[in-house]
Amino acid sequence: MKMNNATLSKGLFLDIRTTAEAINILYKHFPPPSLFESIPILEANNRVLAQDIYSQIDVPNFNRSSMDGYALNAKDTFGASSSMPAYLNIAGDVLMGEASSLRLKSGEAARIPTGGMLPEGANAVVMIEHTHEIDSRILEVQKPVGIWENTVCIGQDIKKQSLLFRAGRLLRAYEIGALAAIGQTRVDVYQRLNVGIISTGDEIVPAHALPDQGQVRDINSFIIGSKVLELGAVPNFYGIVQDRVELIHDAVKACVYQNDVVLICGGSSVGARDFVIDAISSMGEILVHGVAMRPGKPTIIAKIDNKPVIGLPGHPASTTIVFLVLVQPLLSHLQNTILTPWHLTAITSRNIPSQPGREDYVRVKCRMQNAECGMQKTEYLAEPIFGPSGLIRPIFEANGLIKIPIDCEGLDEGEEVKVMLI
Amino acid sequence: MKMNNATLSKGLFLDIRTTAEAINILYKHFPPPSLFESIPILEANNRVLAQDIYSQIDVPNFNRSSMDGYALNAKDTFGASSSMPAYLNIAGDVLMGEASSLRLKSGEAARIPTGGMLPEGANAVVMIEHTHEIDSRILEVQKPVGIWENTVCIGQDIKKQSLLFRAGRLLRAYEIGALAAIGQTRVDVYQRLNVGIISTGDEIVPAHALPDQGQVRDINSFIIGSKVLELGAVPNFYGIVQDRVELIHDAVKACVYQNDVVLICGGSSVGARDFVIDAISSMGEILVHGVAMRPGKPTIIAKIDNKPVIGLPGHPASTTIVFLVLVQPLLSHLQNTILTPWHLTAITSRNIPSQPGREDYVRVKCRMQNAECGMQKTEYLAEPIFGPSGLIRPIFEANGLIKIPIDCEGLDEGEEVKVMLI
Repeated sequence: MKMNNATLSKGLFLDIRTTAEAINILYKHFPPPSLFESIPILEANNRVLAQDIYSQIDVPNFNRSSMDGYALNAKDTFGASSSMPAYLNIAGDVLMGEASSLRLKSGEAARIPTGGMLPEGANAVVMIEHTHEIDSRILEVQKPVGIWENTVCIGQDIKKQSLLFRAGRLLRAYEIGALAAIGQTRVDVYQRLNVGIISTGDEIVPAHALPDQGQVRDINSFIIGSKVLELGAVPNFYGIVQDRVELIHDAVKACVYQNDVVLICGGSSVGARDFVIDAISSMGEILVHGVAMRPGKPTIIAKIDNKPVIGLPGHPASTTIVFLVLVQPLLSHLQNTILTPWHLTAITSRNIPSQPGREDYVRVKCRMQNAECGMQKTEYLAEPIFGPSGLIRPIFEANGLIKIPIDCEGLDEGEEVKVMLI
Repeated sequence: MKMNNATLSKGLFLDIRTTAEAINILYKHFPPPSLFESIPILEANNRVLAQDIYSQIDVPNFNRSSMDGYALNAKDTFGASSSMPAYLNIAGDVLMGEASSLRLKSGEAARIPTGGMLPEGANAVVMIEHTHEIDSRILEVQKPVGIWENTVCIGQDIKKQSLLFRAGRLLRAYEIGALAAIGQTRVDVYQRLNVGIISTGDEIVPAHALPDQGQVRDINSFIIGSKVLELGAVPNFYGIVQDRVELIHDAVKACVYQNDVVLICGGSSVGARDFVIDAISSMGEILVHGVAMRPGKPTIIAKIDNKPVIGLPGHPASTTIVFLVLVQPLLSHLQNTILTPWHLTAITSRNIPSQPGREDYVRVKCRMQNAECGMQKTEYLAEPIFGPSGLIRPIFEANGLIKIPIDCEGLDEGEEVKVMLI
């Protein structure tokens, strides 16, 4: 093993990038693929629309009551009050789910349920609470209603021929409901990305194997694979590749051929054991080697056959953070959408030191402080989870990530910080 | 159609509950089922552990270097500085992934890569940055290291025989990585809940049908079904049932028999058209009819064959909120875990009026105000989305929900509020 201080401190890391630059490079070099597929909307949660959606119908396609009450002509109620009610003739009942044959004349009202269709001649609904049936034919109205009050008019919700959703919209349960409303029961969504995952390292054994002295199990494939699934993409596993340039080269070659994105965990540094840069240099262009973040400094971004190949550090704690900070935005970009993670505001439970000149990413565990305080603001306490590099416990103890900016010397106890939910 | 003011204002709603009471009733009456299944960990994201997990091994199972550097005995570096370095003999190299045959004597060091196994006689690692190789046999050390510095000791991460996760833990990618680390590649998780979904209403037609005058498409099955999937449960659809007591009765009966939870959308009120309460009263116990929330007041909670049967209002906007506020906690309870939704702190963009005596749930669209302000707190602006009851557009325009407490008369523009992410 050769190790050289000069290589480590300078070497390929000379041209180090900020995370923002690295993300810009990813976005610039790798346009989203445009392949799409048609799927039933019930399977479309967390997928991205690949078509603009126009409504073929008005929603609702009739003037609809939004209350239980009486359909009538608004002007027949003008001036009505409990001391001076208006009296109308009850012309009949509107039934749910069908057009009424009633044609209301001035001074007439019809019983109507929530969701019922206004009969001809009606332009408002008075709520049942503001009425009283004197007998089955005479209605007393104690409050005036405005025109179209307590109704939803034709197309008020969604207009015929109007654009409902643009391509690129991330579909949630709510969008799926709206698609059902306009009868769009299948939609074109972008195809799932195929993400090839390679673990490298002579010390790595599969999770099902019993590690011998000096060996550890492959954790990265599971964390990264599981996160890839969460993001709606497909992880493809290429197993554990030993630290030999030609083996890594061949694995990356197969992986690039079969996937949209390649992630290589481990071996991204410039020590003698870090063969990834040598293995992939000949296959394409190295766009970034070295990012001003900790953990994650040795990250590699390469372009091979126009596909992104990302070299992540080998420590699971570092791999995970590089995935969250750089790969997650890339995957959402390649799926034609923009994922903006939510950020809580929290109070730090203790000082968090940081070294200027790099972004520090600190895992935290956020806990709600005053959950039951009604409408006041929620206080979260963010407890940093420290530990020697290489531990895996901090990975699963954390539920958030704090970014300490590149020019910052740390955070004080009690300071308000943004926490990215992870 | 008969409508009666007296029935509406009192009737079954007399014994109205708060949402907290309703949730307590759900928790009390419906203990989680204990059925579990064994699945591969890669399929276990968003599932709940049904077993306590103990580690069969120490992680790591050897003393491990967490840096590139030199393994040595810490005391050989005590007092070292750049002006007064310590000098050690380089005894050889530690290779990755295997136990070294080296036995370090006092005054000796061995080259070691990150992740390498400390040889016998070593109890610390000095970082390569604080050393200089005079030649291939003499190492200069410019900084002292403490005992076990830059190492991860046997079992420091996870101790053999120790409890790693308790049953009831919701598994994320991170827990899955830890399970891989201890070689637990399959786990027992609670079985997915089966959730039967019934839509009622004479005006409802399937999403694939063309609604006639007075008809609307079934949206609730899609929104609720999609949310149920999101929560890791299985939605089973029982279609659209017409507003007839015997039809609803029969559908609920079949649905209860085949599912763990039954959700009935529509018909939960006490108007003449609201047949659900009549249909289910004879089949079991009505625990709640009427919750002090808006929307959602007519919500029904019943217990039939010891299973929860929830009657939700028919308007999709109301159905969705009752699902988020009452059904979502129930489903996570029945899956043996507790889901605490994250709450952002946001600033209201305008006044939000509310009527005391009920909890108001107001949909909002949250937007980040100062995303690029580094570590300062994140400001979200919460814009309330109003619209007549019965519209579906507010459902998909919102990304958050504000709860206005029961004794509150509303929120002022610029006030800080908690927003539940939906």
